[in-house]
Amino acid sequence: MKEPRISASTSRPARASSFDVIAFDADDTLWHTERLYVDAQQKFRQLLAGYHDPGWIEARLYQTEMHNLEHFGYGIKAFALSMIETAVELTEGRISGRDIRAIIDLAKNMLNADVELMDHVSETIPHLAARHTLMLVTKGDLLDQQRKLSGSGLADYFAHVEIVSDKNQETYTALLNRHSLLPERFLMVGNSLRSDILPVLALGAWAVFIPHPLTWAHESAEPPKPGHPRFYQLEHLDQLPDLLEQIE
Amino acid sequence: MKEPRISASTSRPARASSFDVIAFDADDTLWHTERLYVDAQQKFRQLLAGYHDPGWIEARLYQTEMHNLEHFGYGIKAFALSMIETAVELTEGRISGRDIRAIIDLAKNMLNADVELMDHVSETIPHLAARHTLMLVTKGDLLDQQRKLSGSGLADYFAHVEIVSDKNQETYTALLNRHSLLPERFLMVGNSLRSDILPVLALGAWAVFIPHPLTWAHESAEPPKPGHPRFYQLEHLDQLPDLLEQIE
Repeated sequence: MKEPRISASTSRPARASSFDVIAFDADDTLWHTERLYVDAQQKFRQLLAGYHDPGWIEARLYQTEMHNLEHFGYGIKAFALSMIETAVELTEGRISGRDIRAIIDLAKNMLNADVELMDHVSETIPHLAARHTLMLVTKGDLLDQQRKLSGSGLADYFAHVEIVSDKNQETYTALLNRHSLLPERFLMVGNSLRSDILPVLALGAWAVFIPHPLTWAHESAEPPKPGHPRFYQLEHLDQLPDLLEQIE
Repeated sequence: MKEPRISASTSRPARASSFDVIAFDADDTLWHTERLYVDAQQKFRQLLAGYHDPGWIEARLYQTEMHNLEHFGYGIKAFALSMIETAVELTEGRISGRDIRAIIDLAKNMLNADVELMDHVSETIPHLAARHTLMLVTKGDLLDQQRKLSGSGLADYFAHVEIVSDKNQETYTALLNRHSLLPERFLMVGNSLRSDILPVLALGAWAVFIPHPLTWAHESAEPPKPGHPRFYQLEHLDQLPDLLEQIE
């Protein structure tokens, strides 16, 4: 597995900027991810269709995932273990070995899925990397995130790659300390209010929210109050360069 | 989950050293880990005792783990998924939901196990941290490794914490680059010839091997040739300070 490389050519911005680092979430900000989960959940509901109705299966899976977060953290392996646990519970142990095997295969297929960049990413990230120091901040399984970064063709544009176990005020504080960054010179871009936006604003840094039509319920949260001075919302990533110029 | 903190007080060694960084493996170098896997495997063999003999179960589990490494990487979640897959295969799908649930519980118990430091660690690491810049280099699940570091009471002694998806020449090269370290001023201490010693020596850095009686088959390898100038083998961690003084 290739480690994310630090590219010297992108670590020095070509001109002055209000920000020392522009940081990006990865899943559903740079490449599609949630749809893999949505597809897998649909197949999971089909597997259990003989036992329960789809809404109940979905609700119980989510419950199991939330309960297991403290043990398993985020990512596809955690999701697979929660699907298996839910399947055993919802069938009162009657789930077949063949169906358990099918759930493991769902996870492997997710882990092997091609990386599909979201719209505008392949032009916008190189454009920004020529002008700013970029950082990737993502949570989930180490190996899976490295594989996706490597497959994305974007690795060389990111001067720093941070794969963290969670994205909250504590982890962002540690990250800013580790890179000797001031919050007011750090901007984070992402699709999750809970993970990319609110903790970053709370620390005094800047945040750009780009909503994604598919977002896991766990990642939703109340948006910041209207008129927040360090918060912006965009429809698409290709609006980001103009926004940055306006801020500067 | 608390992120490993960077402790300013330990990031500057009190006196000159031949090494800019002394790096430590974590599992079975600083705290016991493999015995958790050995216990879980024993319970796993008991679960399947009605289907196959213990040696065959062990061999097939190892085969599944090796096959799944590229998908799942290292750590307890990967181990759990491989146990489940092996159980389904070895029982030709007849494994009960109750037994699947028992396997998931084995994994959760491993993830929640108390961190037990190995002998001499609680005295030797603070002693070394007062004299050298220490780094932790470990592979496996992010959340699990952070939990163990946090529970170990050792977090403040490590100026840098690197949790990587694998420990090979490529990942060590990336790590040395990221910290602007010269191989000849980097020393790694660990119990795995494959992960802690051989790739480090191959890069021109120094390595101290402290064998552990329980070592996963995957981590074994041929030791370096006798008389290798940058390789040392110790019985216990408390011999390390004297060795470092001799080298300097």
